[in-house]
Amino acid sequence: MSQEVTIVRNVLEANDRLAQELENSFRVKKILCLNLMSSPGAGKTSLLEHTLTDLKDEFKMAVIEGDLQTDNDAQRIAATGAQAVQINTEGGCHLDSGMVLEALKSIDTEGLDILFIENVGNLVCPAEFNVGEDYKVTLLSAAEGDDKPEKYPFMFHISAVMLLNKTDLLPYVDFDLEKATSHAKKLNADIEVFPVSARTGENLGKWYEWLRKKRAEKL
Amino acid sequence: MSQEVTIVRNVLEANDRLAQELENSFRVKKILCLNLMSSPGAGKTSLLEHTLTDLKDEFKMAVIEGDLQTDNDAQRIAATGAQAVQINTEGGCHLDSGMVLEALKSIDTEGLDILFIENVGNLVCPAEFNVGEDYKVTLLSAAEGDDKPEKYPFMFHISAVMLLNKTDLLPYVDFDLEKATSHAKKLNADIEVFPVSARTGENLGKWYEWLRKKRAEKL
Repeated sequence: MSQEVTIVRNVLEANDRLAQELENSFRVKKILCLNLMSSPGAGKTSLLEHTLTDLKDEFKMAVIEGDLQTDNDAQRIAATGAQAVQINTEGGCHLDSGMVLEALKSIDTEGLDILFIENVGNLVCPAEFNVGEDYKVTLLSAAEGDDKPEKYPFMFHISAVMLLNKTDLLPYVDFDLEKATSHAKKLNADIEVFPVSARTGENLGKWYEWLRKKRAEKL
Repeated sequence: MSQEVTIVRNVLEANDRLAQELENSFRVKKILCLNLMSSPGAGKTSLLEHTLTDLKDEFKMAVIEGDLQTDNDAQRIAATGAQAVQINTEGGCHLDSGMVLEALKSIDTEGLDILFIENVGNLVCPAEFNVGEDYKVTLLSAAEGDDKPEKYPFMFHISAVMLLNKTDLLPYVDFDLEKATSHAKKLNADIEVFPVSARTGENLGKWYEWLRKKRAEKL
Protein backbone atom coordinates (compact mmCIF):
# COMPACT_ATOMS: atom_id res chain seq x y z
CA MET A 1 0.00 0.00 0.00
CA SER A 2 2.93 2.43 0.48
CA GLN A 3 3.31 2.76 -3.29
CA GLU A 4 -0.33 3.80 -3.41
CA VAL A 5 0.15 6.39 -0.67
CA THR A 6 3.17 7.83 -2.54
CA ILE A 7 1.14 8.11 -5.76
CA VAL A 8 -1.72 9.86 -3.99
CA ARG A 9 0.75 12.32 -2.47
CA ASN A 10 2.36 12.92 -5.85
CA VAL A 11 -1.03 13.55 -7.46
CA LEU A 12 -1.96 16.06 -4.75
CA GLU A 13 1.44 17.80 -5.00
CA ALA A 14 1.21 18.05 -8.79
CA ASN A 15 -2.27 19.51 -8.40
CA ASP A 16 -1.04 22.03 -5.83
CA ARG A 17 1.69 23.25 -8.20
CA LEU A 18 -0.88 23.93 -10.93
CA ALA A 19 -3.25 25.50 -8.35
CA GLN A 20 -0.45 27.90 -7.44
CA GLU A 21 -0.11 28.89 -11.12
CA LEU A 22 -3.84 29.54 -11.31
CA GLU A 23 -3.79 31.55 -8.08
CA ASN A 24 -0.95 33.74 -9.35
CA SER A 25 -2.77 34.39 -12.59
CA PHE A 26 -6.01 35.31 -10.78
CA ARG A 27 -4.04 37.67 -8.51
CA VAL A 28 -2.43 39.47 -11.45
CA LYS A 29 -5.78 39.74 -13.26
CA LYS A 30 -7.62 40.73 -10.04
CA ILE A 31 -10.20 37.99 -10.51
CA LEU A 32 -11.99 36.70 -7.42
CA CYS A 33 -12.16 32.91 -7.84
CA LEU A 34 -14.59 30.80 -5.81
CA ASN A 35 -14.75 27.01 -5.64
CA LEU A 36 -18.41 26.01 -5.12
CA MET A 37 -18.97 22.57 -3.58
CA SER A 38 -21.84 20.49 -2.18
CA SER A 39 -23.65 17.16 -2.36
CA PRO A 40 -25.48 16.43 -5.64
CA GLY A 41 -28.61 18.54 -5.94
CA ALA A 42 -27.91 20.97 -3.08
CA GLY A 43 -28.55 23.92 -5.39
CA LYS A 44 -25.20 25.17 -6.70
CA THR A 45 -26.46 25.90 -10.21
CA SER A 46 -29.66 27.56 -8.95
CA LEU A 47 -27.59 29.78 -6.66
CA LEU A 48 -25.41 30.79 -9.60
CA GLU A 49 -28.41 31.51 -11.83
CA HIS A 50 -29.70 34.04 -9.27
CA THR A 51 -26.27 35.49 -8.53
CA LEU A 52 -25.31 35.97 -12.19
CA THR A 53 -28.67 37.60 -12.94
CA ASP A 54 -28.88 39.84 -9.86
CA LEU A 55 -25.28 41.11 -10.03
CA LYS A 56 -24.83 41.33 -13.79
CA ASP A 57 -24.72 45.14 -13.80
CA GLU A 58 -22.05 45.18 -11.08
CA PHE A 59 -19.62 42.48 -12.15
CA LYS A 60 -18.38 40.62 -15.19
CA MET A 61 -18.67 36.96 -14.15
CA ALA A 62 -17.92 33.56 -15.67
CA VAL A 63 -18.54 29.97 -14.61
CA ILE A 64 -16.61 26.73 -15.06
CA GLU A 65 -19.07 23.86 -14.65
CA GLY A 66 -17.84 20.46 -13.45
CA ASP A 67 -19.98 17.37 -14.07
CA LEU A 68 -19.43 13.68 -14.66
CA GLN A 69 -21.66 13.89 -17.77
CA THR A 70 -24.00 16.28 -19.63
CA ASP A 71 -23.74 20.02 -20.24
CA ASN A 72 -27.15 20.76 -18.68
CA ASP A 73 -25.67 23.08 -16.06
CA ALA A 74 -23.52 25.05 -18.51
CA GLN A 75 -26.64 25.60 -20.62
CA ARG A 76 -28.56 26.90 -17.59
CA ILE A 77 -25.67 29.28 -16.82
CA ALA A 78 -25.32 30.45 -20.43
CA ALA A 79 -29.04 31.33 -20.40
CA THR A 80 -28.25 34.06 -17.84
CA GLY A 81 -25.90 35.69 -20.35
CA ALA A 82 -22.71 34.81 -18.43
CA GLN A 83 -19.80 32.92 -19.99
CA ALA A 84 -19.99 29.21 -19.16
CA VAL A 85 -17.57 26.38 -19.91
CA GLN A 86 -18.43 22.76 -19.16
CA ILE A 87 -15.86 20.24 -17.96
CA ASN A 88 -16.99 16.62 -18.16
CA THR A 89 -14.87 14.48 -15.84
CA GLU A 90 -16.12 11.23 -17.48
CA GLY A 91 -16.82 9.65 -14.13
CA GLY A 92 -14.17 11.51 -12.13
CA CYS A 93 -15.34 12.54 -8.66
CA HIS A 94 -13.77 16.03 -8.47
CA LEU A 95 -12.21 18.82 -10.52
CA ASP A 96 -8.48 19.38 -10.46
CA SER A 97 -6.29 22.32 -11.45
CA GLY A 98 -5.27 20.77 -14.77
CA MET A 99 -8.92 20.62 -15.85
CA VAL A 100 -9.48 24.22 -14.76
CA LEU A 101 -6.37 25.44 -16.63
CA GLU A 102 -7.68 23.74 -19.77
CA ALA A 103 -11.20 25.17 -19.36
CA LEU A 104 -9.81 28.67 -18.79
CA LYS A 105 -8.49 28.69 -22.37
CA SER A 106 -12.12 29.00 -23.49
CA ILE A 107 -12.91 31.93 -21.18
CA ASP A 108 -12.32 35.58 -21.98
CA THR A 109 -10.70 36.75 -18.72
CA GLU A 110 -10.23 40.35 -19.93
CA GLY A 111 -11.98 42.54 -17.34
CA LEU A 112 -13.42 39.50 -15.54
CA ASP A 113 -14.34 40.24 -11.92
CA ILE A 114 -15.50 36.91 -10.54
CA LEU A 115 -14.91 33.33 -11.68
CA PHE A 116 -17.12 30.65 -10.13
CA ILE A 117 -15.94 27.06 -10.36
CA GLU A 118 -18.89 24.73 -9.77
CA ASN A 119 -17.35 21.46 -8.66
CA VAL A 120 -18.73 17.93 -9.09
CA GLY A 121 -21.55 17.22 -6.61
CA ASN A 122 -19.67 15.40 -3.87
CA LEU A 123 -19.15 16.35 -0.23
CA VAL A 124 -15.89 14.39 0.09
CA CYS A 125 -13.31 14.29 -2.72
CA PRO A 126 -13.42 17.87 -4.12
CA ALA A 127 -12.26 19.16 -0.73
CA GLU A 128 -8.80 17.65 -1.32
CA PHE A 129 -8.07 19.41 -4.61
CA ASN A 130 -7.35 23.14 -4.73
CA VAL A 131 -8.17 24.73 -8.07
CA GLY A 132 -6.55 28.14 -7.56
CA GLU A 133 -9.55 29.56 -5.72
CA ASP A 134 -9.47 32.42 -3.21
CA TYR A 135 -12.19 30.73 -1.17
CA LYS A 136 -14.11 27.49 -0.94
CA VAL A 137 -17.88 27.93 -0.62
CA THR A 138 -20.04 24.98 0.45
CA LEU A 139 -23.80 24.63 0.09
CA LEU A 140 -25.75 22.46 2.48
CA SER A 141 -29.38 21.78 1.63
CA ALA A 142 -31.89 21.75 4.49
CA ALA A 143 -33.23 18.50 3.01
CA GLU A 144 -29.89 16.78 3.68
CA GLY A 145 -30.12 17.05 7.45
CA ASP A 146 -28.41 19.17 10.11
CA ASP A 147 -25.88 16.43 10.94
CA LYS A 148 -23.90 16.81 7.72
CA PRO A 149 -21.13 19.18 8.99
CA GLU A 150 -20.41 16.67 11.77
CA LYS A 151 -20.43 13.71 9.36
CA TYR A 152 -18.44 15.33 6.52
CA PRO A 153 -16.15 17.52 8.62
CA PHE A 154 -13.26 18.26 6.24
CA MET A 155 -15.44 20.05 3.69
CA PHE A 156 -16.79 22.45 6.31
CA HIS A 157 -13.41 22.83 8.03
CA ILE A 158 -11.84 24.28 4.88
CA SER A 159 -14.76 26.39 3.60
CA ALA A 160 -14.97 30.14 4.12
CA VAL A 161 -18.74 30.14 3.63
CA MET A 162 -21.56 27.68 4.31
CA LEU A 163 -24.74 28.56 2.41
CA LEU A 164 -27.64 26.82 4.16
CA ASN A 165 -29.82 26.39 1.11
CA LYS A 166 -33.47 25.38 0.59
CA THR A 167 -34.74 27.32 3.60
CA ASP A 168 -38.10 27.19 1.78
CA LEU A 169 -38.21 23.48 2.78
CA LEU A 170 -37.58 24.12 6.50
CA PRO A 171 -41.29 23.74 7.43
CA TYR A 172 -41.35 20.26 5.85
CA VAL A 173 -38.09 18.68 7.05
CA ASP A 174 -36.40 17.99 10.39
CA PHE A 175 -33.55 20.48 10.21
CA ASP A 176 -32.21 22.51 13.11
CA LEU A 177 -30.48 25.61 11.71
CA GLU A 178 -28.75 26.31 15.05
CA LYS A 179 -27.40 22.78 15.29
CA ALA A 180 -25.98 22.78 11.74
CA THR A 181 -24.43 26.21 12.33
CA SER A 182 -22.87 25.31 15.66
CA HIS A 183 -21.39 22.08 14.24
CA ALA A 184 -19.91 24.00 11.32
CA LYS A 185 -18.45 26.65 13.66
CA LYS A 186 -16.88 23.94 15.83
CA LEU A 187 -15.01 22.75 12.73
CA ASN A 188 -14.17 26.26 11.56
CA ALA A 189 -14.73 29.18 13.92
CA ASP A 190 -14.44 31.70 11.05
CA ILE A 191 -16.97 30.14 8.69
CA GLU A 192 -19.66 32.56 7.50
CA VAL A 193 -23.14 31.03 7.50
CA PHE A 194 -25.85 32.40 5.21
CA PRO A 195 -29.30 30.75 5.21
CA VAL A 196 -30.75 31.20 1.70
CA SER A 197 -33.27 29.84 -0.74
CA ALA A 198 -31.75 29.56 -4.20
CA ARG A 199 -35.13 28.36 -5.47
CA THR A 200 -37.13 31.42 -4.42
CA GLY A 201 -34.16 33.80 -4.41
CA GLU A 202 -34.82 34.82 -0.81
CA ASN A 203 -32.15 36.04 1.63
CA LEU A 204 -29.39 36.26 -0.95
CA GLY A 205 -28.44 39.78 0.21
CA LYS A 206 -25.74 38.75 2.71
CA TRP A 207 -24.18 36.41 0.15
CA TYR A 208 -24.04 39.30 -2.34
CA GLU A 209 -22.52 41.59 0.30
CA TRP A 210 -19.86 38.98 1.00
CA LEU A 211 -19.07 38.72 -2.74
CA ARG A 212 -18.76 42.51 -3.03
CA LYS A 213 -16.42 42.67 -0.03
CA LYS A 214 -14.21 39.82 -1.21
CA ARG A 215 -14.08 41.17 -4.74
CA ALA A 216 -13.05 44.60 -3.41
CA GLU A 217 -10.23 43.01 -1.40
CA LYS A 218 -8.70 41.63 -4.61
CA LEU A 219 -8.23 45.12 -6.12
CA MET B 1 0.14 9.40 -15.23
CA SER B 2 0.45 5.77 -16.40
CA GLN B 3 1.91 4.77 -13.03
CA GLU B 4 -1.18 6.30 -11.42
CA VAL B 5 -3.55 4.41 -13.73
CA THR B 6 -1.75 1.14 -12.93
CA ILE B 7 -2.07 1.75 -9.19
CA VAL B 8 -5.77 2.52 -9.49
CA ARG B 9 -6.27 -0.69 -11.46
CA ASN B 10 -4.30 -2.69 -8.88
CA VAL B 11 -6.38 -1.21 -6.06
CA LEU B 12 -9.63 -2.13 -7.85
CA GLU B 13 -8.37 -5.64 -8.64
CA ALA B 14 -7.26 -6.26 -5.05
CA ASN B 15 -10.70 -5.06 -3.91
CA ASP B 16 -12.46 -7.38 -6.38
CA ARG B 17 -10.53 -10.39 -5.04
CA LEU B 18 -11.68 -9.64 -1.48
CA ALA B 19 -15.22 -8.93 -2.75
CA GLN B 20 -15.23 -12.43 -4.27
CA GLU B 21 -14.27 -13.90 -0.88
CA LEU B 22 -17.12 -12.02 0.76
CA GLU B 23 -19.58 -13.11 -1.93
CA ASN B 24 -18.60 -16.77 -1.50
CA SER B 25 -19.03 -16.54 2.23
CA PHE B 26 -22.48 -14.90 1.90
CA ARG B 27 -23.51 -17.62 -0.59
CA VAL B 28 -22.49 -20.43 1.79
CA LYS B 29 -24.25 -18.75 4.72
CA LYS B 30 -27.30 -17.85 2.58
CA ILE B 31 -27.12 -14.19 3.58
CA LEU B 32 -28.63 -11.62 1.23
CA CYS B 33 -26.16 -8.73 1.13
CA LEU B 34 -27.19 -5.28 -0.12
CA ASN B 35 -24.92 -2.29 -0.75
CA LEU B 36 -26.93 0.87 -0.02
CA MET B 37 -25.67 4.04 -1.70
CA SER B 38 -26.78 7.66 -2.23
CA SER B 39 -25.79 11.30 -1.86
CA PRO B 40 -25.33 12.53 1.72
CA GLY B 41 -28.68 12.94 3.45
CA ALA B 42 -30.84 11.07 0.92
CA GLY B 43 -32.30 8.92 3.71
CA LYS B 44 -30.36 5.63 3.84
CA THR B 45 -30.38 5.39 7.63
CA SER B 46 -34.05 6.37 7.90
CA LEU B 47 -34.94 3.71 5.34
CA LEU B 48 -33.03 1.13 7.38
CA GLU B 49 -34.69 2.20 10.65
CA HIS B 50 -38.12 1.48 9.13
CA THR B 51 -37.02 -1.71 7.38
CA LEU B 52 -35.33 -3.20 10.45
CA THR B 53 -38.34 -2.39 12.62
CA ASP B 54 -41.08 -3.48 10.20
CA LEU B 55 -39.41 -6.79 9.20
CA LYS B 56 -37.86 -7.77 12.52
CA ASP B 57 -40.23 -10.72 13.04
CA GLU B 58 -39.47 -12.08 9.55
CA PHE B 59 -35.70 -11.75 9.24
CA LYS B 60 -32.55 -11.59 11.27
CA MET B 61 -30.78 -8.51 9.93
CA ALA B 62 -27.52 -6.64 10.56
CA VAL B 63 -26.04 -3.38 9.30
CA ILE B 64 -22.50 -2.25 8.55
CA GLU B 65 -22.44 1.55 8.67
CA GLY B 66 -19.89 3.50 6.65
CA ASP B 67 -19.12 7.11 7.55
CA LEU B 68 -16.16 9.46 7.39
CA GLN B 69 -16.63 10.27 11.08
CA THR B 70 -19.06 9.72 14.01
CA ASP B 71 -21.04 6.64 15.01
CA ASN B 72 -24.39 8.50 14.94
CA ASP B 73 -25.85 6.17 12.32
CA ALA B 74 -24.77 2.95 14.05
CA GLN B 75 -26.43 4.23 17.22
CA ARG B 76 -29.67 4.94 15.33
CA ILE B 77 -29.56 1.40 13.88
CA ALA B 78 -28.74 -0.24 17.23
CA ALA B 79 -31.80 1.50 18.72
CA THR B 80 -34.00 -0.69 16.46
CA GLY B 81 -32.51 -3.79 18.12
CA ALA B 82 -30.52 -4.89 15.05
CA GLN B 83 -26.79 -5.57 15.13
CA ALA B 84 -24.83 -2.54 13.91
CA VAL B 85 -21.11 -2.06 13.31
CA GLN B 86 -19.65 1.32 12.43
CA ILE B 87 -16.74 1.75 10.01
CA ASN B 88 -15.10 5.17 10.10
CA THR B 89 -13.17 5.76 6.87
CA GLU B 90 -11.32 8.75 8.40
CA GLY B 91 -12.02 10.89 5.36
CA GLY B 92 -12.18 8.09 2.79
CA CYS B 93 -14.90 8.56 0.17
CA HIS B 94 -16.17 4.94 -0.08
CA LEU B 95 -16.15 1.54 1.63
CA ASP B 96 -14.02 -1.29 0.26
CA SER B 97 -14.07 -5.04 0.77
CA GLY B 98 -11.16 -5.00 3.23
CA MET B 99 -13.12 -2.71 5.54
CA VAL B 100 -16.22 -4.89 5.25
CA LEU B 101 -14.21 -8.08 6.01
CA GLU B 102 -12.84 -6.40 9.13
CA ALA B 103 -16.28 -5.15 10.25
CA LEU B 104 -17.80 -8.62 9.71
CA LYS B 105 -15.60 -9.98 12.52
CA SER B 106 -17.83 -8.04 14.94
CA ILE B 107 -21.09 -9.42 13.52
CA ASP B 108 -22.73 -12.66 14.56
CA THR B 109 -23.62 -14.12 11.14
CA GLU B 110 -25.17 -17.29 12.59
CA GLY B 111 -28.70 -17.45 11.17
CA LEU B 112 -28.37 -13.99 9.61
CA ASP B 113 -30.81 -13.43 6.73
CA ILE B 114 -29.97 -9.97 5.42
CA LEU B 115 -26.85 -7.82 5.74
CA PHE B 116 -27.18 -4.17 4.76
CA ILE B 117 -24.00 -2.25 4.03
CA GLU B 118 -24.72 1.48 4.25
CA ASN B 119 -21.99 3.12 2.20
CA VAL B 120 -20.47 6.61 2.62
CA GLY B 121 -22.83 9.30 1.29
CA ASN B 122 -21.42 9.85 -2.19
CA LEU B 123 -23.04 9.33 -5.59
CA VAL B 124 -19.71 8.74 -7.37
CA CYS B 125 -16.87 6.76 -5.77
CA PRO B 126 -18.72 3.94 -3.93
CA ALA B 127 -20.02 2.71 -7.31
CA GLU B 128 -16.51 1.56 -8.26
CA PHE B 129 -15.95 -0.73 -5.26
CA ASN B 130 -17.80 -4.01 -4.89
CA VAL B 131 -18.13 -5.16 -1.29
CA GLY B 132 -19.43 -8.70 -1.88
CA GLU B 133 -23.04 -7.57 -2.25
CA ASP B 134 -25.76 -9.41 -4.18
CA TYR B 135 -27.26 -6.10 -5.28
CA LYS B 136 -26.55 -2.41 -5.24
CA VAL B 137 -29.47 -0.27 -4.07
CA THR B 138 -29.43 3.49 -4.67
CA LEU B 139 -31.58 6.11 -2.99
CA LEU B 140 -32.40 9.35 -4.77
CA SER B 141 -34.07 12.07 -2.73
CA ALA B 142 -36.81 14.12 -4.43
CA ALA B 143 -35.07 17.22 -3.03
CA GLU B 144 -31.96 16.45 -5.13
CA GLY B 145 -33.70 16.93 -8.47
CA ASP B 146 -34.91 14.63 -11.25
CA ASP B 147 -31.75 15.18 -13.33
CA LYS B 148 -29.47 13.15 -11.06
CA PRO B 149 -29.60 9.79 -12.93
CA GLU B 150 -28.55 11.62 -16.09
CA LYS B 151 -25.77 13.50 -14.29
CA TYR B 152 -24.42 10.60 -12.20
CA PRO B 153 -25.07 7.77 -14.66
CA PHE B 154 -22.72 5.04 -13.46
CA MET B 155 -24.38 4.72 -10.05
CA PHE B 156 -27.81 4.15 -11.62
CA HIS B 157 -26.41 1.95 -14.38
CA ILE B 158 -25.13 -0.60 -11.86
CA SER B 159 -27.97 -0.50 -9.33
CA ALA B 160 -30.72 -3.12 -9.18
CA VAL B 161 -33.06 -0.75 -7.34
CA MET B 162 -33.61 3.00 -7.25
CA LEU B 163 -35.61 4.10 -4.21
CA LEU B 164 -37.10 7.52 -4.97
CA ASN B 165 -37.13 8.80 -1.43
CA LYS B 166 -38.74 11.83 0.25
CA THR B 167 -41.95 11.61 -1.76
CA ASP B 168 -43.46 13.62 1.14
CA LEU B 169 -41.52 16.62 -0.26
CA LEU B 170 -42.89 16.28 -3.82
CA PRO B 171 -45.48 19.07 -3.34
CA TYR B 172 -42.70 21.51 -2.36
CA VAL B 173 -39.94 20.77 -4.91
CA ASP B 174 -39.60 20.69 -8.69
CA PHE B 175 -39.22 16.97 -9.23
CA ASP B 176 -40.69 14.99 -12.10
CA LEU B 177 -41.00 11.34 -11.01
CA GLU B 178 -41.54 10.17 -14.61
CA LYS B 179 -38.46 12.01 -15.84
CA ALA B 180 -36.19 10.58 -13.12
CA THR B 181 -37.56 7.08 -13.75
CA SER B 182 -37.18 7.23 -17.52
CA HIS B 183 -33.59 8.54 -17.22
CA ALA B 184 -32.74 5.70 -14.83
CA LYS B 185 -34.34 3.11 -17.14
CA LYS B 186 -32.36 4.46 -20.09
CA LEU B 187 -29.18 3.70 -18.12
CA ASN B 188 -30.44 0.35 -16.88
CA ALA B 189 -33.58 -1.17 -18.41
CA ASP B 190 -33.92 -3.65 -15.50
CA ILE B 191 -33.75 -1.17 -12.64
CA GLU B 192 -36.67 -1.44 -10.20
CA VAL B 193 -38.01 1.94 -9.12
CA PHE B 194 -39.86 2.33 -5.81
CA PRO B 195 -41.12 5.77 -4.76
CA VAL B 196 -41.06 5.86 -0.93
CA SER B 197 -40.98 8.16 2.04
CA ALA B 198 -38.49 6.90 4.62
CA ARG B 199 -39.51 9.80 6.86
CA THR B 200 -43.21 8.94 7.09
CA GLY B 201 -42.74 5.23 6.31
CA GLU B 202 -45.20 5.39 3.41
CA ASN B 203 -45.10 3.11 0.35
CA LEU B 204 -42.43 0.80 1.71
CA GLY B 205 -44.50 -2.29 0.80
CA LYS B 206 -42.95 -2.89 -2.65
CA TRP B 207 -39.46 -2.50 -1.21
CA TYR B 208 -40.28 -5.11 1.43
CA GLU B 209 -41.71 -7.44 -1.24
CA TRP B 210 -38.51 -7.08 -3.24
CA LEU B 211 -36.45 -7.92 -0.13
CA ARG B 212 -38.54 -11.04 0.55
CA LYS B 213 -38.19 -12.22 -3.04
CA LYS B 214 -34.44 -11.66 -3.21
CA ARG B 215 -33.91 -13.28 0.20
CA ALA B 216 -35.92 -16.34 -0.91
CA GLU B 217 -33.74 -16.63 -4.03
CA LYS B 218 -30.65 -17.06 -1.84
CA LEU B 219 -32.01 -20.17 -0.13
